[in-house]
Amino acid sequence: MNVRFVLVRPRDPNNIGAAARALANFGFDDLRVVDPYPPVWREAKSAVGAQDLLKTAQAGTLEEALAGCHLVLGTTSLKARKPEQAAVALPALADFLKERATAKTEAAILFGSEKTGLPNEALDLCHAVLHIPTHKRQPSMNLAQAVVVTAYEIKRAPLAVPASGEWPTTQQLNDLTGKALQAMEALGFRRDRPPEELQRMFRRWRLSRRDAAFLQGLFKRIKPFPPGA
Amino acid sequence: MNVRFVLVRPRDPNNIGAAARALANFGFDDLRVVDPYPPVWREAKSAVGAQDLLKTAQAGTLEEALAGCHLVLGTTSLKARKPEQAAVALPALADFLKERATAKTEAAILFGSEKTGLPNEALDLCHAVLHIPTHKRQPSMNLAQAVVVTAYEIKRAPLAVPASGEWPTTQQLNDLTGKALQAMEALGFRRDRPPEELQRMFRRWRLSRRDAAFLQGLFKRIKPFPPGA
Repeated sequence: MNVRFVLVRPRDPNNIGAAARALANFGFDDLRVVDPYPPVWREAKSAVGAQDLLKTAQAGTLEEALAGCHLVLGTTSLKARKPEQAAVALPALADFLKERATAKTEAAILFGSEKTGLPNEALDLCHAVLHIPTHKRQPSMNLAQAVVVTAYEIKRAPLAVPASGEWPTTQQLNDLTGKALQAMEALGFRRDRPPEELQRMFRRWRLSRRDAAFLQGLFKRIKPFPPGA
Repeated sequence: MNVRFVLVRPRDPNNIGAAARALANFGFDDLRVVDPYPPVWREAKSAVGAQDLLKTAQAGTLEEALAGCHLVLGTTSLKARKPEQAAVALPALADFLKERATAKTEAAILFGSEKTGLPNEALDLCHAVLHIPTHKRQPSMNLAQAVVVTAYEIKRAPLAVPASGEWPTTQQLNDLTGKALQAMEALGFRRDRPPEELQRMFRRWRLSRRDAAFLQGLFKRIKPFPPGA
């Protein structure tokens, strides 16, 4: 398993550096920063000691950050959670990964900005949401601190390698959603499920890569009936 | 169990504030700062948002910070560890506490300064040393980050409450060492065990409070033989 730590629009350059350093402490080296404000990103990269740590960090879009991912988790306070997604408490993450990830899995953990958390369009791409159980008197965690406890938790338990487990990537699931929408359109199917709901639904299902390919092939065959048929 | 987080001579005021905040996130409220440099302590207390967090934090001597403690752990890189003390890796801390701590236990976790770690006189008062397994390419952790992963680990597993377990406090073990030294002196016993070694030895033994009182009573009875007897 490779884990990408994805910071979505972080506001504080110090947090980017502190997160990078904490990841290096636990042997992770895949940090992505989504759509950073240019001055924030410049300042983070120019900080003392950051050159080495942020050398391999990539800034880009959310789509780029998740390219090739099989498993996406979004950190959130429970307030923001979509009830249909599984919520994993951080102390259960090691066990969750044991069940869901193989040695070849590309996983991503998304962290929202300090003020607003993750936007809905990012949460919609998550297989599950991750929450860090904090005390009600001081529930809100510093971004870099949230990153370091998550990195610690992932390293805490060695990863089991289950026999099965080829998971579809983010793109494959996005394509599947697109094909499903086209098929629904072709069938004149009532739009009672908006695209975001399909995105989440296909992530709840635990489709294998073959399952996703099968469904996609099926949807592609669906064409509108010729008028008057 | 109450856990005190004890920072020994921290150098960076930001770390004190960040540690306090991280402890509050996980519901801890017992932060002690040992012999802080006065300007460091002043700056930490005057930082924005620190008033509330550091309201209950206490600055004082190491002795004051450990008053009444039954179980003392010192964080250290393995380089500095005394081989005779048990070394607990952080992911095993929850299990260690399950075995050693009761609901009434006063525990302390010591963190050294950013540059030099814990001094030997602090390590000598530890029942075990705690090390955070970090990656060899970036082994050195930020102080506040070390505090937050430790706080997280302690909260991760609920504390079991064993039937037995009245442990002697730091003062009782210090007194015991003093009485043992007096007894050795009275007996003309060869000083092949320096005081620090006795301090560590009595902490390795897992003496109950009654055991410590028994030994202390025994040592107190030992008087020098009158000359010529």
